[in-house]
Amino acid sequence: MDKRIKTAIVGYGNIGKFTLQALQASEDFEIVGVVRRSSNEKRINGTEIPVVDNIVDLKDVEVAILCTPSREVEKYASEILPLGINTVDSFDIHSEIKGMRNRLNKIATDSGTVSIISAGWDPGSDSIVRVLMQAMAPKGITDTNFGPGMSMGHSVAVKSIAGVKDALSMTIPKGTGLHRRMVYVEILPGYDFKDIEDKIKKDPYFSSDETYVMLVDSVEMLKDMGHGVNMVRKGVSGKTHNQLLEFNMKINNPALTAQILVGAARASMRMAPGCYTMIEIPVVDLLPGNRDHWIGLV
Amino acid sequence: MDKRIKTAIVGYGNIGKFTLQALQASEDFEIVGVVRRSSNEKRINGTEIPVVDNIVDLKDVEVAILCTPSREVEKYASEILPLGINTVDSFDIHSEIKGMRNRLNKIATDSGTVSIISAGWDPGSDSIVRVLMQAMAPKGITDTNFGPGMSMGHSVAVKSIAGVKDALSMTIPKGTGLHRRMVYVEILPGYDFKDIEDKIKKDPYFSSDETYVMLVDSVEMLKDMGHGVNMVRKGVSGKTHNQLLEFNMKINNPALTAQILVGAARASMRMAPGCYTMIEIPVVDLLPGNRDHWIGLV
Repeated sequence: MDKRIKTAIVGYGNIGKFTLQALQASEDFEIVGVVRRSSNEKRINGTEIPVVDNIVDLKDVEVAILCTPSREVEKYASEILPLGINTVDSFDIHSEIKGMRNRLNKIATDSGTVSIISAGWDPGSDSIVRVLMQAMAPKGITDTNFGPGMSMGHSVAVKSIAGVKDALSMTIPKGTGLHRRMVYVEILPGYDFKDIEDKIKKDPYFSSDETYVMLVDSVEMLKDMGHGVNMVRKGVSGKTHNQLLEFNMKINNPALTAQILVGAARASMRMAPGCYTMIEIPVVDLLPGNRDHWIGLV
Repeated sequence: MDKRIKTAIVGYGNIGKFTLQALQASEDFEIVGVVRRSSNEKRINGTEIPVVDNIVDLKDVEVAILCTPSREVEKYASEILPLGINTVDSFDIHSEIKGMRNRLNKIATDSGTVSIISAGWDPGSDSIVRVLMQAMAPKGITDTNFGPGMSMGHSVAVKSIAGVKDALSMTIPKGTGLHRRMVYVEILPGYDFKDIEDKIKKDPYFSSDETYVMLVDSVEMLKDMGHGVNMVRKGVSGKTHNQLLEFNMKINNPALTAQILVGAARASMRMAPGCYTMIEIPVVDLLPGNRDHWIGLV
């Protein structure tokens, strides 16, 4: 009997492709198929994995890994959970997580399924570390410093300015949670660079950060999916001050997001019906096999 | 109605004293009393907190924080859990955690109580970070580098050698999980330093590590409760190599242990009956108040 977790990938952009790799590298998963609207492919290139328009065209799916843009996550989860399929996603709009969790919690509970939301690295694994640091030193300040790495949201904001052919915004950590924005742009003929630079610096995405704009020949040649985080907490345990805690990483961004989604998909099979964020899941449940094995290595 | 968690401290050495401070600094706890065998005190100095011989002499205790030596933890937990009282401890003998968990799990389940074991920093919070790193990059190597800081186990081993008046063993990280031992000793008149040095280096606690032994006038004057950890993982997420993850801390050792014990005591009130290690607990449950507050800050 095959006990592998039958999994569908919904959305096949960057995160979807890395999720496919992470699932292929995990022995406890079976990839049932990829859901991709308006695709001409019948199978994922070089594999037997079917591509379908709608998840209902795939059989016996237990977990759907949502690799859609964040704005579409709730719609997909709300449709898929009532089909008796768990969902996981890397929804990354921090201010909307709490509300979405409560809405999806009702749907998941009613349908006896599990939804694990915001299971990327920030929110996601970083959230677990932040909460752990908070527990280790309840009074104090945690700073999260991102980068150097590409910011998708900021890059998209620049691309939407008239005259911008392509753009890339790099997030550079300045420490104490502050960031510099290094923006690389290609512009269309007939547009003025100084004018575009001015518009970028006034955009709400950039107006409160130190921002530099540079004209380049090819934005494509600058792209690198590396990213990083430096989280620092200085605080008080009990009545003892100056407890110093730090978490650092230098990672391929979509590869890490995909790996965490796969761990969350596994955890979804072990939780009671409902919707959860990563800080509500025992970390051991992200790992394959039974708990006893990992407890023995604690 | 007072909803504070009624807590007893069992054992009043270093960890017990810092646990008292951590409880005093946490608004959601009430300290019912301290259990301390063969003490002449009736109250903890400068407070109204009673000191008793046996936990049965305290009323309505909900959680007992075991601050005894590791070797005595299981005996105390086995006696206290059947009284309907949860227990938490910082049991630190890695190789014995799994067995103890399974034995206490039966006792806790039978009595409808919760026991959270090995809730210090290693095992404990470090274990959570190690498991999280494993989930983020399933293939790869994690190195845990301790120190600089005092090792109690190693210091006690040296003190048991004839002619040693007092001793302190410092753990110094060499990287890749290897450690140097710097041993400071005071010796009694009539004993030969070279002979004691030789015995220390042949002791199983030291024989496989680079060890230096130094004769000093006062071991007491060298004592500092600071400690540290540097955990590093280099691994593979999906099929993407060179994912670099790191956790560092520089902390007061008993203060951090005590704070984590207090978080675990809180979590014990939220778990189903049974025995758990830290990797089996949602990190959010270590924090006070309700989950929604923390999820909003994810």
